[in-house]
Amino acid sequence: MQNVAVIGYGVVGSGTVELFMKNRESISQKIGRDCDIKYILDLRDFPDSPFADRMVKDFETILNDKDIEVVAEVVGGTTFAYDYTKRLLEAGKSVVTSNKALVAEKGAELLKIAREHNCNYLFEASVGGGIPIIRPLNKCLAGNEILKISGILNGTTNFILTKMIRDQMSFDDALKLAQQNGYAEADPTADVEGEDACRKICILGSLAYGKHIYPDHVHCSGITRITLDDVEYAGNAGYVIKLIGSVKKLENGKISAIVCPRLVPKDNMLANVDDVYNAITVTGDGVGDVLFYGQGAGKLPTASAVVGDIIDCLKHQQRVLALSWKESEDQDFVVNYKETETAVYVRIKADDAENLKSAISEMFGKLMYIERAGRPENELAFITPVMKEADIDSNLTILSHSAEIASKIRMY
Amino acid sequence: MQNVAVIGYGVVGSGTVELFMKNRESISQKIGRDCDIKYILDLRDFPDSPFADRMVKDFETILNDKDIEVVAEVVGGTTFAYDYTKRLLEAGKSVVTSNKALVAEKGAELLKIAREHNCNYLFEASVGGGIPIIRPLNKCLAGNEILKISGILNGTTNFILTKMIRDQMSFDDALKLAQQNGYAEADPTADVEGEDACRKICILGSLAYGKHIYPDHVHCSGITRITLDDVEYAGNAGYVIKLIGSVKKLENGKISAIVCPRLVPKDNMLANVDDVYNAITVTGDGVGDVLFYGQGAGKLPTASAVVGDIIDCLKHQQRVLALSWKESEDQDFVVNYKETETAVYVRIKADDAENLKSAISEMFGKLMYIERAGRPENELAFITPVMKEADIDSNLTILSHSAEIASKIRMY
Repeated sequence: MQNVAVIGYGVVGSGTVELFMKNRESISQKIGRDCDIKYILDLRDFPDSPFADRMVKDFETILNDKDIEVVAEVVGGTTFAYDYTKRLLEAGKSVVTSNKALVAEKGAELLKIAREHNCNYLFEASVGGGIPIIRPLNKCLAGNEILKISGILNGTTNFILTKMIRDQMSFDDALKLAQQNGYAEADPTADVEGEDACRKICILGSLAYGKHIYPDHVHCSGITRITLDDVEYAGNAGYVIKLIGSVKKLENGKISAIVCPRLVPKDNMLANVDDVYNAITVTGDGVGDVLFYGQGAGKLPTASAVVGDIIDCLKHQQRVLALSWKESEDQDFVVNYKETETAVYVRIKADDAENLKSAISEMFGKLMYIERAGRPENELAFITPVMKEADIDSNLTILSHSAEIASKIRMY
Repeated sequence: MQNVAVIGYGVVGSGTVELFMKNRESISQKIGRDCDIKYILDLRDFPDSPFADRMVKDFETILNDKDIEVVAEVVGGTTFAYDYTKRLLEAGKSVVTSNKALVAEKGAELLKIAREHNCNYLFEASVGGGIPIIRPLNKCLAGNEILKISGILNGTTNFILTKMIRDQMSFDDALKLAQQNGYAEADPTADVEGEDACRKICILGSLAYGKHIYPDHVHCSGITRITLDDVEYAGNAGYVIKLIGSVKKLENGKISAIVCPRLVPKDNMLANVDDVYNAITVTGDGVGDVLFYGQGAGKLPTASAVVGDIIDCLKHQQRVLALSWKESEDQDFVVNYKETETAVYVRIKADDAENLKSAISEMFGKLMYIERAGRPENELAFITPVMKEADIDSNLTILSHSAEIASKIRMY
């Protein structure tokens, strides 16, 4: 039985084919019947591929073939992928994907179409690469009220920060190294500005809280402005700087969601997650904290999640796995980050820095100054108490009249 | 609809009832219909419990009630629990459990009965408490060949070792503290001798490799003989001592499974797992290493997994979730640990310790000696190269004629 199609033969697509074919025998055993990849759709030619005979260029071939039960959409983007996914689901074919952009943008709609057509739309690979997180969150932790999810969701930025922390490499040098190693794209914007992590926290939050959280509603800042000075101050105070995506339920039932660099205490498990690894902490009212850790990207790790979803679909023919969330028409579902409370690390520059201390204390109350070897006289670094972020920002605006606000990084 | 029964109202049972009732509304939403706990079976009286009206003493009440679809067996042990589980499954009622002893002993048989009667036997709570591991291993990682599983599977021993490492507390004092905190039983044998961890690695190995691995076939040593001297030597060499259960597939298709203390490199994620926390690393040919971390025991964390399984059963009425492994008649399925390769840390005592060095080098080849402050002249500690364990033991037997072998701990 040839019942699987793969759309897109890039990194994830070729990994999916490779892993599926390598373990096809044991996969067939798990499913209880034979399975095989019938088509690979890509506009490019791959005449030397061992799977050249399965390559097709016309999407309709897949759509109209009754044998095809499951399609892996690993082409990425939100144009073709959206159109293909919609039409496949409407035809009752299950779709599995690693496409975080599409799930974050159109998840609610596509899940609804899948439900209506008695097929599945699965996306374990869209968050954390091969790390199991979607299914554990949706199934194993279903007995919990999810209080909070936070994690290191982007391997590229975590690699860069690790190099800055461990090897005192500058951001620019670390980014170059990441690009040389194939960890960062030529245009690294989506990674370093936090957009990729933002899509992932939107998916996790939507799943945990049952309503679509759109990337546009989530405040997102990246790591481009982190300096080695900040890394050093953080280290001296017992923290490492990590790009953290987080989402939590507030007491009023609304959601707080944000992606930003944070100072993470060194004894927190997330502080020990280095290089291109990802880790996600889920806090439930029963389970407490559980953490999921592994390679958050890459050919075979991501393929592992895609193939896992393919297997699940082939096992559950014609059945809707209960994975869904609603559209959120309510614009206020995600609160403005300025209305939430946080502590922040601040680094300022001013000729008369020492003389500003009393004014700073008056603004923030009890705060902690941090030292570093050879701290310039015109520099101060401190950690504020927990306050509403809007109030912190008002204070910093006032302070900016007498000092340059060089850094503001939230505490974990 | 009152469709759930709980057998056993001890720590896990009362936690299960508490968490289920607390989140009952959202659980009903997830299932798509009302659900409730109808019976709680316990031989003791709980007249002051808010659920006193649901307490029953006769198992037949549950067995014969057609409303009951799912039963949580959280009574533990392998006598009553085995009988009850068997009869419930034969009656077509799904059973979920935290009972690792029963699953490790009778898993293959009970899964077969469940399959034959079109119901489910789920045991997410049997390994790692609330940490999602059974379902991720069985579903999310299904596309992988599982190369290895290893982890810290027992919270009590990890608490004791953490106290020994961090606070230089002796084993006896740390055990007492664990008992005072309710982390260890009055009779701590099953924990400190590794039996509990052994049951868990048997369950994970059976699931990963499709054949029952019986605790009796797994070499198991505990932590009672670990001294503070060993902790110090390990620390100086860059390691911490952890009780590790591991199972892996050998090239000949057989399985190696063992539970023992190991020296874990400090930069390994497992080395940072402290106190009563558990963590499990799964290595797949696609995904690489993924790690699952959280509270491996306790009332509500374990209840979280039990309730997750209840929800899954209620969602999938009359359906067999594909979770199974075969009986292993083959006694040789698990190889003798002496036939596998490992490096070990050894501490010896001898009046002429220094003079033994050349003999030791001749036995083991290149090895690494470790120092500690104030090392007695009659003591040596070293790490051997990787060798077949039988050969290491032969060498140590010879060495034991001229020295006391004070410690032998395997390397991670």
